[in-house]
Amino acid sequence: MNFSVIRYVCGWLLLVVAAFLALPGLVALYFHEEAGFALLWTILAAAAVGLLLIIKKPKNKVFYAAEGFATVAISWLLISVIGAIPFVISGAIPRFVDAFFETVSGFTTTGASILSDVESMPKCLLFWRSLTHWIGGMGVLVFILCLLPLTGGSNMNIMKAESPGPSVSRLVPKVQSTAKILYAIYIALTGAELILLVAFGMRLFDAVTLTFGTAGTGGFGVLNTSIASYTTAQQTIITVFMILFGVNFNAYFFIISKKIGAAFKNEEVIAYFAIIATSVIVITLNTVHMYENVRMAIHHNAFTVASLITTTGYSTVDFDKWPALSKTVAVFLMMCGACAGSTGGGLKVSRLLLLAKTARKELKRSLHPDIVWKVKLDGKVVEHSVERSLNTYMVIYTMIFLASLFVISIEGYDLVTNFTAVAATINNIGPGLSLVGPTCNFGFFSDLSKYVLCFDMLAGRLELLPVVLMFVPATWKKF
Amino acid sequence: MNFSVIRYVCGWLLLVVAAFLALPGLVALYFHEEAGFALLWTILAAAAVGLLLIIKKPKNKVFYAAEGFATVAISWLLISVIGAIPFVISGAIPRFVDAFFETVSGFTTTGASILSDVESMPKCLLFWRSLTHWIGGMGVLVFILCLLPLTGGSNMNIMKAESPGPSVSRLVPKVQSTAKILYAIYIALTGAELILLVAFGMRLFDAVTLTFGTAGTGGFGVLNTSIASYTTAQQTIITVFMILFGVNFNAYFFIISKKIGAAFKNEEVIAYFAIIATSVIVITLNTVHMYENVRMAIHHNAFTVASLITTTGYSTVDFDKWPALSKTVAVFLMMCGACAGSTGGGLKVSRLLLLAKTARKELKRSLHPDIVWKVKLDGKVVEHSVERSLNTYMVIYTMIFLASLFVISIEGYDLVTNFTAVAATINNIGPGLSLVGPTCNFGFFSDLSKYVLCFDMLAGRLELLPVVLMFVPATWKKF
Repeated sequence: MNFSVIRYVCGWLLLVVAAFLALPGLVALYFHEEAGFALLWTILAAAAVGLLLIIKKPKNKVFYAAEGFATVAISWLLISVIGAIPFVISGAIPRFVDAFFETVSGFTTTGASILSDVESMPKCLLFWRSLTHWIGGMGVLVFILCLLPLTGGSNMNIMKAESPGPSVSRLVPKVQSTAKILYAIYIALTGAELILLVAFGMRLFDAVTLTFGTAGTGGFGVLNTSIASYTTAQQTIITVFMILFGVNFNAYFFIISKKIGAAFKNEEVIAYFAIIATSVIVITLNTVHMYENVRMAIHHNAFTVASLITTTGYSTVDFDKWPALSKTVAVFLMMCGACAGSTGGGLKVSRLLLLAKTARKELKRSLHPDIVWKVKLDGKVVEHSVERSLNTYMVIYTMIFLASLFVISIEGYDLVTNFTAVAATINNIGPGLSLVGPTCNFGFFSDLSKYVLCFDMLAGRLELLPVVLMFVPATWKKF
Repeated sequence: MNFSVIRYVCGWLLLVVAAFLALPGLVALYFHEEAGFALLWTILAAAAVGLLLIIKKPKNKVFYAAEGFATVAISWLLISVIGAIPFVISGAIPRFVDAFFETVSGFTTTGASILSDVESMPKCLLFWRSLTHWIGGMGVLVFILCLLPLTGGSNMNIMKAESPGPSVSRLVPKVQSTAKILYAIYIALTGAELILLVAFGMRLFDAVTLTFGTAGTGGFGVLNTSIASYTTAQQTIITVFMILFGVNFNAYFFIISKKIGAAFKNEEVIAYFAIIATSVIVITLNTVHMYENVRMAIHHNAFTVASLITTTGYSTVDFDKWPALSKTVAVFLMMCGACAGSTGGGLKVSRLLLLAKTARKELKRSLHPDIVWKVKLDGKVVEHSVERSLNTYMVIYTMIFLASLFVISIEGYDLVTNFTAVAATINNIGPGLSLVGPTCNFGFFSDLSKYVLCFDMLAGRLELLPVVLMFVPATWKKF
């Protein structure tokens, strides 16, 4: 393990976070809020520590898989701790565990909150809370590594660890260039949503924060009613952008490169839209009697399905009141998640596609053991190593899920609460069902449960491996 | 597909079932029950059709994997239909769907019942109901194929399809001899339990039926209170034998062959006992306040844990009233299941062991991609093909589970009822939680849901593949 390079990267990370914290600082200035001082002290502290860490450049620039995983896990923990400080010292969220939960939930784009009254918070902190979604959506490390010159396949290793999905494809030969294209798409889409929301009459502050939440597929709102109080047109814009941010960004790259055909032939994207359409139809058939008319039923169900499959977590209706079939579909959407290479969480559509394809292959093999079958995705043969790490992913996912479920259930709440609390955090969604339903919050859990759920959020966002490997002694071996 | 050989095997199967039906016939004679006539007509019909099917010997004795899977799936459907007839024509269970559900539940050793009042049933039919557990526990096809001379690896293919667990090991070079040893162990253990129960004062009728239910890890009782009304000593005997029937029968073979060391070094058996011990301790710590004293807490919890992990489904207490942690452990035990090569259902301990070991291997590989790691079980390297079919098993299991859950949830019962109803049937347990808890029954479900749950029971008992392959057109291709 090359510790000095990790220290160096963390130093730069602190400086970047300090810079990001200046944005809510400006909001505080504009609204004359006292909480701005809490932001100021945090900026100063982060910048000072950051500078200390980068004074000495690392001699050894070697950066392999182990360093990649460790850097990602440590950085995310670090920014969550730093990000929680303004909440604590401003007194807005006095207990550290709650502030940490809220910040982890922000950076991991989960959107699960411990706050029962969002509207009483200072605006600058609401802004920071939503900004964490936007920062966490694309991941901040790849950004930093575009700027730092390291060796040993560093960028690819970081990107593998920080990007959602079973495999990372380079759009262009250089990793840095790939990252720059992805950030450009991210910023362009964010800008488009912001402009549309403002154009359709939303207050600028709400438009900015909700756009951050949509872009990162996070889900923190600035009103106690989440998205229910906005106009139908504004809700529709958010529905569309939630779905767009859940699409594999490679598809946008193809569109930019004028390979429109390739964008629309992407199997994952097709499956993603098919799941959304099917779910909206099934839920509408099942719940249409609960709405004033069919049009409103489709409107709200499309919003909720988009919010669940992209793991955003915004809500316009209380889907905990839906009948069993629709609730079951909702839980399935939570697990399923959006496309790989998007900002969404969950298992990812491509993982489920690959699993289904592998199963079909093995079924054929059980009838004709001697014929060699290959799994293909988008016309390309999927390597065995991808299939194998996918299976490992599922096993580790299930193990973390079960272990968390056991710890949470010590508190004795009902099984649906426990199950969906874990599902909503490990898949980075936000709300679950029953006691953690869309009209409730996570504040009632014990500190132990909150830390477990924080672990689940980080494990889910970082696609398990970096977080799990922290507990494997071999990761820390000196070389 | 060689249809004539399947016809021939099914003919013999009908004759064997007719012979088995004679046993409850004798019970009817002894108790002077009119339902005996229903049994008699069924025996005559089964024997007549059976004889018709075996008159013409198949010319082509070729018997490959496809034939193996098809024979197993068709046979199990056939015996379930035949076995349901006495219930219907005696009027004890007037509707076919209910009688079919009860018989599938019997043969698959699930033990889920649609009856609310067991005690009002004729004794001969209660006997038949419990006997189906005993027949289904070891599987009847391997028995038949010991007697029929077929070619093309027929027996191994049937055994693979009918025996519970990820892989079948031949204890001795000849498959027939392996099967004979396994049946001998099964009969010996059954006899031992019966003698002990009678020695401790149980009525012979109850002792025989409960022993059938324990041996097959089925769970049908003959009293409305399941096992709660028996003495503590009798309950303890059942606890011990449930655990014993959940052990991999290979371990008994090692003991008989005086390789005691090998029996106690079997990793699956060790893990099985470790899971039982841990679960009893956790549940006892969590529920001790609900019992008169610690001793009774351990007694009832050991009974319930044994009943759940072996997927028997007998109950002495209503575990639906347990606190959340214990209920969560209960659901985990339902999924986990007993050892491969036992009569128990569920995913099987060896599958979970292999999954955990594969995950550990892949974790190491993610740090050091160039080193070749091998998964070992009981000191032997596990082949890649086993790992791969295991992963496929998990995927198909999840897909069937989800699809069933969606259909069941159309009825609108609560999520815990729907989830545990599917879990209790696909894992061949019997009772679930909430509306299908240990004091309830499955009678309230619609016909559609009942057929779906029947499918799940068969899929679970036959380890998915034979049942799933029936829906793959390639299976039926003529060659």
